[in-house]
Amino acid sequence: MTQNIYDNPDFFANYAQLGRSVHGLDGAAEWPALQAMLPNMHGVRVVDLGCGYGWFCRWAAEQGARSVLGLDVSQKMLERARATTGDARIQYAQADLEQLALPECSVDLVYSSLTLHYLKDLPGLLAAAHKALVPGGHLVFSIEHPIFMAARHADWVTTKDGRKTWPVDSYQREGERVTNWLADGVVKQHRTLGTLLNAVIDAGFTLAHIEDWGPTAQQLATVPALADEVERPMLLLVGAHR
Amino acid sequence: MTQNIYDNPDFFANYAQLGRSVHGLDGAAEWPALQAMLPNMHGVRVVDLGCGYGWFCRWAAEQGARSVLGLDVSQKMLERARATTGDARIQYAQADLEQLALPECSVDLVYSSLTLHYLKDLPGLLAAAHKALVPGGHLVFSIEHPIFMAARHADWVTTKDGRKTWPVDSYQREGERVTNWLADGVVKQHRTLGTLLNAVIDAGFTLAHIEDWGPTAQQLATVPALADEVERPMLLLVGAHR
Repeated sequence: MTQNIYDNPDFFANYAQLGRSVHGLDGAAEWPALQAMLPNMHGVRVVDLGCGYGWFCRWAAEQGARSVLGLDVSQKMLERARATTGDARIQYAQADLEQLALPECSVDLVYSSLTLHYLKDLPGLLAAAHKALVPGGHLVFSIEHPIFMAARHADWVTTKDGRKTWPVDSYQREGERVTNWLADGVVKQHRTLGTLLNAVIDAGFTLAHIEDWGPTAQQLATVPALADEVERPMLLLVGAHR
Repeated sequence: MTQNIYDNPDFFANYAQLGRSVHGLDGAAEWPALQAMLPNMHGVRVVDLGCGYGWFCRWAAEQGARSVLGLDVSQKMLERARATTGDARIQYAQADLEQLALPECSVDLVYSSLTLHYLKDLPGLLAAAHKALVPGGHLVFSIEHPIFMAARHADWVTTKDGRKTWPVDSYQREGERVTNWLADGVVKQHRTLGTLLNAVIDAGFTLAHIEDWGPTAQQLATVPALADEVERPMLLLVGAHR
């Protein structure tokens, strides 16, 4: 089973302070880019893998989705999602995404935000997602960029002559990366970009759009701290269809 | 027109010393991985974009290709290719790849090794390649990895605590990168990974395989200097079909 770091009290408390936790989708700088990759939501059956507080599930229902299933490994997240959702079209369930099983051809959109880098068995999840989607159905997800998580010490470095740069090393060494983000000992899975995209292709999907997300000029003007994300790719957005 | 650095005397002389110039395909560590992405070559009509000395063209003919057209911007390269080729199925021609025009549906494989990062108008070239390919035809190319060329000073850095790492910055700033590799003032075009792969998709191709090339254990044992390529992605290999 994937590590359930979200039910760690420290992690949960710190996660609650993030912009995206307080402000929902509008607190996530990559949301406009991810939203642009989504199909028309009217009448769509949606599964959200790693739904967290349920922000995307509620947005999808507001856009006219026919049904929305939010899955998460964290009971605490699901409790809060249920407490803030009052729409009968939205259901939440606890699920280990490494063991995902959904009815065949029952879904029009599989969505996932910043969750898949926690999974060890990504090919298994992608196979389950492909099976659940109708032909022509959409897969849209964001994931931590391989370049963001590859290095032994994934943090800005200052070179001897004073330049600030993002370090890349150990890139071909795939597997666990343990970081102390919001809590100690958060386990993520590093894959090369090729491994990640080939897993999507090999599951039967056709890649439609790939984006190493970066901030717009307007976002930079509003949130100067986003300047870091001009320098390095932090998030990867992927759109594909069955 | 794309910079023709290969006809620069310094560049040409230094290029001639590279392992891949002396030993051909076997001198290029990524060749086995690229070769694995190629279709069965028997009876295939091939265009090689940036054919250089013609190593790949001759290999393709040996494998049973029906016809091979090697294109390069460099007259010096083509002279040497012609001087070392004695196969009527192989033709060489000088071409500015930014102005590529080939007969429609006349080619089964478009191949390119370490050339496309020099092109400013990559979408134009990909459109021409797509048009030239038959339906189901293959596009296979290698290109310098965006992570290899993004930084202002694309060279190993040593951090204050003594770690060697590859620098990434300016990643979202697409456009010219000028390096002094074999000669001064070599101009390359930096694109994010998303921009590059979306250009392939938007030209009408279906992505089939993406690989951030890294050395095998056997290659590392034979050529210890390849250890650098475990740390950072230097080359990107892309396979797609029309």
